[in-house]
Amino acid sequence: MAGKRVLIVYAHQDPHSFNAAAKEVAVEALTSQGFIVEVSDLYAMNFKATATAEDITGELAADMPFHYAEETKLAWQQGKLSADITEEQRKLTEAELVIFQFPIYWFSAPAILKGWFDRVLTEGFAFTPEKRYSQGIFQDKKAILSFTTGSQESMFGINGINGDVYVAIWPIQYGTLHYCGFQVLAPQISWDPAHTSQEARGNMLEAWRKRLHGLMEEKPLFFPSMDSFDKELGFQLRTELHEQEASKGSTVDKHLEKVPRASQFKSGV
Amino acid sequence: MAGKRVLIVYAHQDPHSFNAAAKEVAVEALTSQGFIVEVSDLYAMNFKATATAEDITGELAADMPFHYAEETKLAWQQGKLSADITEEQRKLTEAELVIFQFPIYWFSAPAILKGWFDRVLTEGFAFTPEKRYSQGIFQDKKAILSFTTGSQESMFGINGINGDVYVAIWPIQYGTLHYCGFQVLAPQISWDPAHTSQEARGNMLEAWRKRLHGLMEEKPLFFPSMDSFDKELGFQLRTELHEQEASKGSTVDKHLEKVPRASQFKSGV
Repeated sequence: MAGKRVLIVYAHQDPHSFNAAAKEVAVEALTSQGFIVEVSDLYAMNFKATATAEDITGELAADMPFHYAEETKLAWQQGKLSADITEEQRKLTEAELVIFQFPIYWFSAPAILKGWFDRVLTEGFAFTPEKRYSQGIFQDKKAILSFTTGSQESMFGINGINGDVYVAIWPIQYGTLHYCGFQVLAPQISWDPAHTSQEARGNMLEAWRKRLHGLMEEKPLFFPSMDSFDKELGFQLRTELHEQEASKGSTVDKHLEKVPRASQFKSGV
Repeated sequence: MAGKRVLIVYAHQDPHSFNAAAKEVAVEALTSQGFIVEVSDLYAMNFKATATAEDITGELAADMPFHYAEETKLAWQQGKLSADITEEQRKLTEAELVIFQFPIYWFSAPAILKGWFDRVLTEGFAFTPEKRYSQGIFQDKKAILSFTTGSQESMFGINGINGDVYVAIWPIQYGTLHYCGFQVLAPQISWDPAHTSQEARGNMLEAWRKRLHGLMEEKPLFFPSMDSFDKELGFQLRTELHEQEASKGSTVDKHLEKVPRASQFKSGV
């Protein structure tokens, strides 16, 4: 692994938290394997979460209502993105693995991490109309979500009141990371550390440490190839791929059927 | 509707945007019906998106690593939340309807709006362990997502490459709004206004205006009652409610089957 780079995007306020410990476990386990590890500590950096015109240096390009995606696409082309975005893009470009370490807030990423997605993954840099999903720009990179929950595991199970945790993280795993081409590894989920014993927290960290030693050899989650969708039909599933029940469920159901269930990735993996 | 209050939480940078126009349509249509309309214009307010210790005035309560949810729960009890959070909570308390108007960023809300969810919906104010979902604190209030996409409708259809748009917004509609008890109305989706004609944009705004006149009489989306889940079993679906195929799909699949499909809510509704 010598010289290979990892980026950890870390979003917790407190260096004494479980999330901080999980981040430290990753830094140690990966450094010991010869990786060069960079950490973006979003709260410590006071990372700007909101998508505003200040993200573009100099004049705005378009003579039209401000359209963040359009303006940042042009700014990226012209090297006019703000320095903090450019620096995150540099880290991301160099990394072969990106770990996102965060607590789930409202079935999703905390706003400061959502802001990292909104601001760093600009068109041109992270995707183009042609380069998305299985043909995406970052298809040689791996990404993994490592997060804590405030709910017990049963609530996020397939029969749980919160619904399957894989659906909660679908917008990030599929709609953000795989959209940009990333090979997405199964998430590392640390269940409800705030309401569990010191010993259970230790076990969760040890499971993570163990997993990190084989992480780069893991098979990524399966998502259908972009070829399965017909551009001429507005990127709908090709007719010849429809199964009999296709009209009953959503594409997401089909995607999710192929995704390993959380229960296959309990501690010890 | 005399004296009834509406809150519009609006997240676009530019007053000349389609999102701004949709917000204005709502202000006009609801004011003309006698509602008192308040708007939280998040970018104009420079709304703080990130969840930090500054959101609690005075000393932190807990002698432990900083835990945002725990600290804001205690701060709410003691009247120690920051003034900007308290003001949003006041608006929300008074409103019978809340409209969220925003462009989809990465299958989700822009970070500034995610920050509104993260910071305003504190425990105690917006939910308690006992008061969630169908027994939630805001069960007498209605909420609706009104958003624009950057993708054409076919891509977010049941066979589209992005998967069903209802799955993308599941963390907000169910995991955030319905979690706090809100009756969630079917979303108002304005498809890809940046890449459509002036006429089509006008039609989308007119459809929204028309819908706003009957909005309060609409039937909210169906979600299972909290009674369907067994607390003793960690809030899993009650055994007697399992259908034969329950073990095959996720609870979310079952929830979604009951949810009207986007195609039923095209312009004109």
